[in-house]
Amino acid sequence: MRPGLGALTARHGLLYGGDYNPEQWPEAVWAEDVALMREAGVTLVTVGVFAWGTLEPEPGRFELAWLDRVLDLVAGAGIAVDLATPTASAPPWLAHDHPETSSVDASGVRMSPGSRNHFCPTSPVFREHALRVVRVLADRYAGHPALAMWHVGNELGQRCCCDLCAAAFRGWLRARYGTLDELNRAWGTAFWSQHYARWAEIVPPRAVPYLHNPAQDLDFRRFTSDQLRDLYRVQAEVLRAATPDVPVTTNFMGFFRGVDYRSWRDDVDVVADDWYGDPADPRSPARAALTHDLMRSLGGGRPWVLMEQATGAVNWRPHNLPKPAGAMLVDSLRAVAHGADAVCYFQWRASAAGAERFHSAMLPHAGADTDLHRAIRAQGAVLRRLRRVVGTRVDARAALVFDWSSWWAGEGPGLPSDRLRPVEQLLAWYEPLWRAGIAVDVVHPGDDLDGYDLVAVPGLYLVSDADAANVARVPERGGALVVGPFSAVADEEGRVRGGRFPTPWAATLGASGEEHRPLPDAGVRVDSGLMGAFTAADWSEALRVEGDDVEVLATYRGAGLEGRPAVTRRVHPGGGSASYVSTVLPADALARLLLDAAAGLDPVPCPDGVELARRGDVLFALNHGPGTRTVPLAAPAVDLVTGREVAGALVLGAWSAAALVAP
Amino acid sequence: MRPGLGALTARHGLLYGGDYNPEQWPEAVWAEDVALMREAGVTLVTVGVFAWGTLEPEPGRFELAWLDRVLDLVAGAGIAVDLATPTASAPPWLAHDHPETSSVDASGVRMSPGSRNHFCPTSPVFREHALRVVRVLADRYAGHPALAMWHVGNELGQRCCCDLCAAAFRGWLRARYGTLDELNRAWGTAFWSQHYARWAEIVPPRAVPYLHNPAQDLDFRRFTSDQLRDLYRVQAEVLRAATPDVPVTTNFMGFFRGVDYRSWRDDVDVVADDWYGDPADPRSPARAALTHDLMRSLGGGRPWVLMEQATGAVNWRPHNLPKPAGAMLVDSLRAVAHGADAVCYFQWRASAAGAERFHSAMLPHAGADTDLHRAIRAQGAVLRRLRRVVGTRVDARAALVFDWSSWWAGEGPGLPSDRLRPVEQLLAWYEPLWRAGIAVDVVHPGDDLDGYDLVAVPGLYLVSDADAANVARVPERGGALVVGPFSAVADEEGRVRGGRFPTPWAATLGASGEEHRPLPDAGVRVDSGLMGAFTAADWSEALRVEGDDVEVLATYRGAGLEGRPAVTRRVHPGGGSASYVSTVLPADALARLLLDAAAGLDPVPCPDGVELARRGDVLFALNHGPGTRTVPLAAPAVDLVTGREVAGALVLGAWSAAALVAP
Amino acid sequence: MRPGLGALTARHGLLYGGDYNPEQWPEAVWAEDVALMREAGVTLVTVGVFAWGTLEPEPGRFELAWLDRVLDLVAGAGIAVDLATPTASAPPWLAHDHPETSSVDASGVRMSPGSRNHFCPTSPVFREHALRVVRVLADRYAGHPALAMWHVGNELGQRCCCDLCAAAFRGWLRARYGTLDELNRAWGTAFWSQHYARWAEIVPPRAVPYLHNPAQDLDFRRFTSDQLRDLYRVQAEVLRAATPDVPVTTNFMGFFRGVDYRSWRDDVDVVADDWYGDPADPRSPARAALTHDLMRSLGGGRPWVLMEQATGAVNWRPHNLPKPAGAMLVDSLRAVAHGADAVCYFQWRASAAGAERFHSAMLPHAGADTDLHRAIRAQGAVLRRLRRVVGTRVDARAALVFDWSSWWAGEGPGLPSDRLRPVEQLLAWYEPLWRAGIAVDVVHPGDDLDGYDLVAVPGLYLVSDADAANVARVPERGGALVVGPFSAVADEEGRVRGGRFPTPWAATLGASGEEHRPLPDAGVRVDSGLMGAFTAADWSEALRVEGDDVEVLATYRGAGLEGRPAVTRRVHPGGGSASYVSTVLPADALARLLLDAAAGLDPVPCPDGVELARRGDVLFALNHGPGTRTVPLAAPAVDLVTGREVAGALVLGAWSAAALVAP
Repeated sequence: MRPGLGALTARHGLLYGGDYNPEQWPEAVWAEDVALMREAGVTLVTVGVFAWGTLEPEPGRFELAWLDRVLDLVAGAGIAVDLATPTASAPPWLAHDHPETSSVDASGVRMSPGSRNHFCPTSPVFREHALRVVRVLADRYAGHPALAMWHVGNELGQRCCCDLCAAAFRGWLRARYGTLDELNRAWGTAFWSQHYARWAEIVPPRAVPYLHNPAQDLDFRRFTSDQLRDLYRVQAEVLRAATPDVPVTTNFMGFFRGVDYRSWRDDVDVVADDWYGDPADPRSPARAALTHDLMRSLGGGRPWVLMEQATGAVNWRPHNLPKPAGAMLVDSLRAVAHGADAVCYFQWRASAAGAERFHSAMLPHAGADTDLHRAIRAQGAVLRRLRRVVGTRVDARAALVFDWSSWWAGEGPGLPSDRLRPVEQLLAWYEPLWRAGIAVDVVHPGDDLDGYDLVAVPGLYLVSDADAANVARVPERGGALVVGPFSAVADEEGRVRGGRFPTPWAATLGASGEEHRPLPDAGVRVDSGLMGAFTAADWSEALRVEGDDVEVLATYRGAGLEGRPAVTRRVHPGGGSASYVSTVLPADALARLLLDAAAGLDPVPCPDGVELARRGDVLFALNHGPGTRTVPLAAPAVDLVTGREVAGALVLGAWSAAALVAP
Repeated sequence: MRPGLGALTARHGLLYGGDYNPEQWPEAVWAEDVALMREAGVTLVTVGVFAWGTLEPEPGRFELAWLDRVLDLVAGAGIAVDLATPTASAPPWLAHDHPETSSVDASGVRMSPGSRNHFCPTSPVFREHALRVVRVLADRYAGHPALAMWHVGNELGQRCCCDLCAAAFRGWLRARYGTLDELNRAWGTAFWSQHYARWAEIVPPRAVPYLHNPAQDLDFRRFTSDQLRDLYRVQAEVLRAATPDVPVTTNFMGFFRGVDYRSWRDDVDVVADDWYGDPADPRSPARAALTHDLMRSLGGGRPWVLMEQATGAVNWRPHNLPKPAGAMLVDSLRAVAHGADAVCYFQWRASAAGAERFHSAMLPHAGADTDLHRAIRAQGAVLRRLRRVVGTRVDARAALVFDWSSWWAGEGPGLPSDRLRPVEQLLAWYEPLWRAGIAVDVVHPGDDLDGYDLVAVPGLYLVSDADAANVARVPERGGALVVGPFSAVADEEGRVRGGRFPTPWAATLGASGEEHRPLPDAGVRVDSGLMGAFTAADWSEALRVEGDDVEVLATYRGAGLEGRPAVTRRVHPGGGSASYVSTVLPADALARLLLDAAAGLDPVPCPDGVELARRGDVLFALNHGPGTRTVPLAAPAVDLVTGREVAGALVLGAWSAAALVAP
Repeated sequence: MRPGLGALTARHGLLYGGDYNPEQWPEAVWAEDVALMREAGVTLVTVGVFAWGTLEPEPGRFELAWLDRVLDLVAGAGIAVDLATPTASAPPWLAHDHPETSSVDASGVRMSPGSRNHFCPTSPVFREHALRVVRVLADRYAGHPALAMWHVGNELGQRCCCDLCAAAFRGWLRARYGTLDELNRAWGTAFWSQHYARWAEIVPPRAVPYLHNPAQDLDFRRFTSDQLRDLYRVQAEVLRAATPDVPVTTNFMGFFRGVDYRSWRDDVDVVADDWYGDPADPRSPARAALTHDLMRSLGGGRPWVLMEQATGAVNWRPHNLPKPAGAMLVDSLRAVAHGADAVCYFQWRASAAGAERFHSAMLPHAGADTDLHRAIRAQGAVLRRLRRVVGTRVDARAALVFDWSSWWAGEGPGLPSDRLRPVEQLLAWYEPLWRAGIAVDVVHPGDDLDGYDLVAVPGLYLVSDADAANVARVPERGGALVVGPFSAVADEEGRVRGGRFPTPWAATLGASGEEHRPLPDAGVRVDSGLMGAFTAADWSEALRVEGDDVEVLATYRGAGLEGRPAVTRRVHPGGGSASYVSTVLPADALARLLLDAAAGLDPVPCPDGVELARRGDVLFALNHGPGTRTVPLAAPAVDLVTGREVAGALVLGAWSAAALVAP
C-alpha cells in the first residue's frame, strides 16, 4: 500500500501553494518569499523542478548547500515540500558531451539545448545521469522534515525518433507481438508492400512520402507513452527505496495526447495535474470540469492535486488574456469541487528572465501591493475555511467512456474525416450532464461499469473485443448505454472489423450500419420526436434497425439517407436501454437525448453560467461568468466561502463561488 | 505496332473490374471473391500492385506459389488479369540494406519506409532489385492464360533530390545543352552570380534562402518526369521481350503536375488513368470530363482505361464525402462517353488494415448485402448492354492547348501573379464548350491542329518558336484561334522574349502588349458589345491593336487602362480569326466569346446539370446533380442503360445516366 | 572625415539611375543602353552587384576586360558608377569546393546554390574569397574616372546557425559578458536548467522542442547584425585603403528585422536604402515616408540615396500589382522630400532570365516605345528642375523613438501578446503627424533629444537604464513626452524590471501599472474628454496615478478595469508634459492625443490623400491617390515640377506631385 495525500492533508487541510524556484533569485530574497508565503497561507511548495543545472553545474559536481538552506527555511515556516527530481531538463553540458541524449524529430533533426525537455527518454547515458542526480537528492533529503512528496521530472511528454528509440521500439514490439509474422499480420503489412523480414527493419514513423501505416503510428504512440512511464518508474524506484512513506507522483497535463495516463494510474501515489484553461475560450469551465473528473477517475475517486495553474495570464499562447478578478478563486474551487485536495500554481514569484517571465505568478513583478497578490492571500483564507471537504468523495452515477488508444487511432492517418475529434466529442457529451449538475466519472471501457446508471460512449473508434463485451453488459444489467458514431469500428490492433458496424455492439443496439458518410458542410436535416427537428453536422451513417424492441428516435431527411434512422434505442428485457447516435448532434438535441437517458439521476438544472457540483456534504456553486446569478435554495445553508448563512436564494456576483453546507 | 486493348475488349466488351489484392486476405476468402466477381460481371482485375513484400519477403527469396493460385483461380473464372510489376513500393529490407535506394527531399531528409513510394528513381541498386522481381514475374507468367495486360509500378510520381539524382540530372543537362556555356546562357546564370564553372557544381533545386532559378526549377521538373519514364521503360523492355503481344501500361493521374504524360504517350500501349473526383467540388464533373478528354487525346483518340476510381468516399482528404447513390454509374459512363473502354476501381475488397482501409471498395467492410455492392452488380449489367460503344471514337472539332512545360513554368518562381493557374484556366475555358455539348480534344501546341475548327489557348506562358508558328497557322488556314492572357511570353527555355507580347503571335493577333498588370482584388470593369458589361479579375494587360482588320471586342474601364482594349479579334483574309483575351473573363463572358468562336460547331445546349456527350453513334446523357432533369429529344431513341424506348423528352432522375441510340 | 554625396551631387544635381547589369546581355546591347540612359537623364548606375560569377568564372581566374569596357562606356557618357563588391552571392564553385561557406538554418539544413545570398557570414574561407575579389576590383578601378561610390555586397541580411557561427557567437558573448557567470545571470539560465558550465556548450537558437530562451534569441540577433557589419567592414577597409575619397556604402532595407542599421550608421559614408512599397497596401505612402525619415535620421539629417525601388510591379509577392501611372514620380519625389538626393531603381533593363525577370525595370521587355519608359525619361527631366533641393535639410521638431533591440525583444519568445508589433505601432503613431505635415525624425532612445519639442515613444519594450534616463529628461526640460504601452518593461539584457511598470519612468509619468492585460477581440470601451468615447484594442494595463499634477485623460469602461486610468498626463513644473498611453488607441483618438501634444509645432493639415512635406525652401505636395485634390495656397508659388506659377490653390491630378517655391 503506497502512501497518499492523507498525512499531508491531515496536517494542513486543503493544500495551497505552488512551484517555488529560489535558484532564480539571490538568497536575500528567500526570507521575504517565505514570510509572504506564510501570510498567504501557503502550505506546500514544489522545489527544484528545473534545478538540475544549479544542482550539478558541472558533470558530477553537485552543489546542494543552497537547497539545504531553502528546505530548512521552508521547513522552519511549517511549509511542506514537494521535491522534484530535476530530470525534465538536463544542463547543456549533457547535450554537449553526449549528443545522443538529445531527442530527434521525425525528420532526423536533433534538438538543441536552449529551451527545455530536449532529452531522449531512451538514451542510457541520459538515464544514467538522471538517476545519478535522483540518487543524490534521495540520499540527501530522505529524512528532511520538509520532504512531503516527490515530483518526478515535469510534464513528461517527449517524442523521440532517434536510433536508440527505434531499437527500444523494436524491443517493445517484440514483447507485444512475439513474432514478426504476428506483427506483419497485425499491422497489415501486406498492404503497400510493408512486410518486415527482420526486426531491424522497423523504424519509428519518420518522414515518409505519404500516409503512415496507422498501426505503426498507433504502436509508436503506445511505445512512447510506455517509454516515458519507464523513465518515471526508474526514478520512482530510487525514491521509494529511500523514502517508502513519501508519496511519489508527477504532474499530468489533462487530456494530453502524448501519454496514456490511464496506464500510469498505478504508478503515481497521488494523481497530480496541471490545468491551464484559456480565458478566451467560453467552454473553458466545462473543459476544466471534465479534465478534473478525468483526474479524479484516474485515481479511483481519491483526492488529487491541482499541481499547476495560472493566477492570471500565461505566456505561451499568441495572445494571452488575463483571468477576470474572481476567476482565480472560481477555478480553484472548481478543482476542489471535482475532488482536488490541493490547489497549487506555477509559480510563486514571477521570473525576471527566461521564456516564462510573463507567466503570471502568485507574487507578480509589481510585488505584494497588487490586486493579484491580495487575491492570493484571500484565497488562502477561503481554503482554510473549506477544511471539511478534505478526503471526501464525489458520488458519480454517470460515466463517460474514454481511451487514449482509441483517441490516437481516431485521429490517425487515413480516416474518413478529421472532424470527429474524440476529445471534442467527449466534451460535447459532457457539457449537458455538467450543466445539469450530474456528477460524471471518465472511465476506460475495460473498467468496472457496474456502479453506473448511465454509461455514455461519445466516440470510441477502437475497442478490444473484451472491453466491447464489458460495455455491452450495461444494458443487459439494466443500465442505460448511449453510443456515439464511428465507435467500435476497429479492434485493439486498429484493424477494421468486418461486418455491419459497430460489429461487437450491433446486436446490443439492434442497429447496424454499412457505410460511413461524412456530411457536406451544410449538414443534414433530422426529425425526431424526442429531440425535435434539427440540423446534424459532419457525419452520418447508413443504418438499419433489427428487432421489435428497437425504436427509431430520429430520422435523416436528406444527404442520401432520406427516411433512414439517425438515432435508435433498443429497450432491453431488464429495463436497460442501448441507444445509438450515428451523427454529430447539435448541443440541444444531444442534451435532450442524454438527459432523457439520465432521467433517473435527478439532474439539478444549473442557472446559465453557473456550475453546481456536490462533493461530500458540500454543494459548490460557481459563477464562471461576468453577470450576477441567482441560485434558488431549497433550504437555508451556510456558505463556507463567506461564512454567511444564506436562505431562499444564493446571489452570486460575477466570477464568484460559494460552498454551501447545511447550517 | 504494339498491342492495344482490342483483343481484350473483343472478348469481354467494355472491361469492368478493379485492383485485386488477395495477399491481404487468407486464402479462404479468395473463392468467395471470385464468385462475387463473376456475379458482378467483373472481367478485368489488376493484381500485385503492392505485392513486392509478399512476392520477395526476403532479399532474393521469391514466393510465387500464392500468386500462381490466384491467377489460376481468376483465369478459371474467365477474368483477365492486368498484372503489376510491384516496383512502386519496395519492401523495408531494401531501404534497410541499401539506404541509398530511398528518396531525399529538398532539405536533405531521406524518406523512411512505413508508407509507400519511398524509392529513388535513379538508384542503380533500386533498379537492379526492381528489375529482378520484374524478370521473375515476366518469366513465370509469360504464358499464363490470365495475363492480359502489364501494369508497371503505380502512379509514378516521385521527386528525389539525392546525390544520385543530382548526378543523373547533370547527365540529362549535358545531353540537353551540350556545353556549360549553353547551359549558363539558357539558365541566365549571369543573374545572381550563378555561373557554373563545372558540371559537378549543378545540383537539384534544394533548400535555398530565396527564389530558385526558374530555369533550374523547370529543367529539374523535366528531368524528373524523364527519369520516371526511364524507370518505366526499363521495366517495359523486360516485359515486352517476354510477352510481345501483351500491352504494357501504367496508371496516370490526370493533370498530375509531377509528370509530363504527353512525353510518355508513345511508351504506353494503352493509356490508363486514375480519377478521384471530389464529391464536395461542384466542378468535379467538368474536371472529370476534361481529364478524360486529355487521356483520350494522349492516346490519339484510341480507347483508354479508367484504371482506378472510387465506388464511394476516399480516405486521403481531411473530410471525405461519399458519392451520392447513382453517381458511381454517372461517373463511369462519363468516362465511357469520353472514350474509355474499361471501367475499374480501387479496389475489389475493402482493406481491414493499412492507410487505405477507409477507401471505399467494390465489396465494402459490411459485405455483399449492401446498397453499394448491389450498385456494383447493377453497373456490371449496364456495361454489358453498352458493348456497341467498344472501340468507337469521339469526333472533336475543337481543341484546347495544354503543355506540361508551360504549366511548370507558369507556376514557377517569381511570376507576376500566382493566380493565373494554368489548369484552372484550362478548366474555365473547357466548361462552356462542355456545357454546350461540344467535343474537345486537349492537345499540345506542337500537335497537328489541322483537323480543328476552333483552337483555344487558355494560357500558354511558355511555347517554343516552332510550336508557336504551328499554332499561328490556325487562323491562316481559316480556323478560329482564341488566345488567353500571359501566353507565349517565354520561349522553350523559359526565357522571356523581348518585344511586345505575345511576341510570336503579335502579328497574327494584330494586338500586342507592353505591361502585365495583375489586378487589385476588386478587379476591373470591362465593356463589350459581344459580352456585355462585366468585371474581370486578377489580370490585365496594357495592349494596343494594329491593323484595320482588328476589332476591339471589349474595352477596359479602369485600373489604369481606361479605354484600352481588353479583348481583340483579327479576321484573317481566309476567314480565319485570331482573338486575344488579355484578362480573366468571368464565366458568362468567356462562354459568349468561345461559343461565338465555336459557332460553326453546332453546339447542343445541355440542360443545367446535365452533360450530353456523343461517342460513336451513342449519345450519353448524364445527370450529375440532385434534381430531376428533362432533355428534349428530336427523335425517338432507345436508352441502352434501361433498354427502354424514349420519345419526346428524356427524363433523368437525380444522378442517373442514359445512353441513347437510334431505335 | 569620410567623403559623402557632395562631390557627386555638385556635379550632377539630384542623382538618377539604377542597377545596371550588362553581364546579362550581349555586348552589342550596351551601346543602346548607354544611349537610352543619356536620353533619360541617368547620372548614376550601380554595376556589378551579382557579377562575381562573371568576374571570377573559375576559382582565381578573373575576367575583368568586359567590366573595363562597361566602365569606359559609361564614363564616356558622363555617367557615374556606384561599383559593387559582388560578394552578396558567390559562384556555385565556392559552395562546391567549400561547403562550409554556405549557411545553415536552425534545423541544420545547409543552403544550396541556385538562388542567392547563400553564404555564411562567418566562414573564413568565404571571407578569404570575398576579400580577394574585392581587392582585385579595388586595385583595378581605384583610379577609374567612372568610379564615384562603392556598394558593398547587397542587402546584407543572412542568418546562419552553422558551427562556425556558433563559435563566433561564443566569442561575441565572451566579449559582451566577460565571464560565464555573468552570462548565466543575464540570460537567466537558472530557469529551465540552462546553466552553462563551459563556453563551448552555447549554440545558436537552433531547433528546440519549445520556446527559446529570449535572451539567447536576442543576443543571437545582435550577434548576427554585428557579424554582418563585420563582413561589411572588412570589405570597406580594403576599399577605403585603395580609394580614400570615394564614399563606401551598402543598401539597407528599411525596417529590416535582421540588421540593426542604427549600429551601422558610422560605417556607411552615405545612407542608402531599398524601398519596395506594396501598391496593394493603402498605408504604403505612410510606410514609405516613415522609412525615408528613418534613413535621413540614421544619417544625421544628411542626404541619403534611394538605391533601389521599382518602376512598376515587383516579382516576389504572390500577386504583384503594378504602380498606377504617375505613382513612380510621386514615390520618387516623396523620397526627395524626405531627404534623398538620389533616386535609383532596380534595374535598368528588365532581365530575360533569372528569378527577377518579371521585376519591372526602367527599360521594360517591350522596349523604349512604352508608357513606362516615357515616364522614366520625363522623370529625369523633373529631377533636373529640382536641383535646388540638393543638400538641403528637413527641419524636424518631433521625434519618434525606435530601437532594433527593443523590436527584437518585443517580438521574441513568450510575450504576453504577439499583437503589439513594434513597427506597426510606430507606423500608427507616425501617421497622424505625417498627415498633419509635421516633420518627424526617427531616433534612438540614447540619441540627443534636446532639439525636439515632442518625443513620442510608441512602444519600447526594452530600454537600458541610461537611455531611459535620457528620455525622462524630455519633460523635465519642457518638452512633451508621450509613451505607449508595454514600454521600458525590460532592461538592456531583456530582463523584466521589478516593481510597477514602466519602472524607470513611473515617477516621470506619475502613473504606474501592476498587470499587463491583453484584451479579448471585442476590445474595451474607453471614455475621454480629449478624445471622446471609443473602443481600444488588443491591450490594456491595470494602472494607478500618483500626484496632483497627473491628469487622467481617458478612463477604461470594462474589461475588468472599470474606472481605471487608460491615458494619463503629468504636467511637469517647467511646462513639460509626460503622457502615458496604456492601450492601443484607434487612429482618431491617437491623432487627437498626439496633435494635442504637438500643438506647438504648427501642423499643416493635408487634404485627404495628399502629403505635404517641406525640405529646405521647397514644399512638396504629393497626391498619392486616384482622385483630383486641391491644396489651398497662402501665397502664389512656382511649381518646379511643371515650371508653372500657381496661385490660390494647387490642383493635383491623380498620382501627381508638385514642388512649390516662392516665385
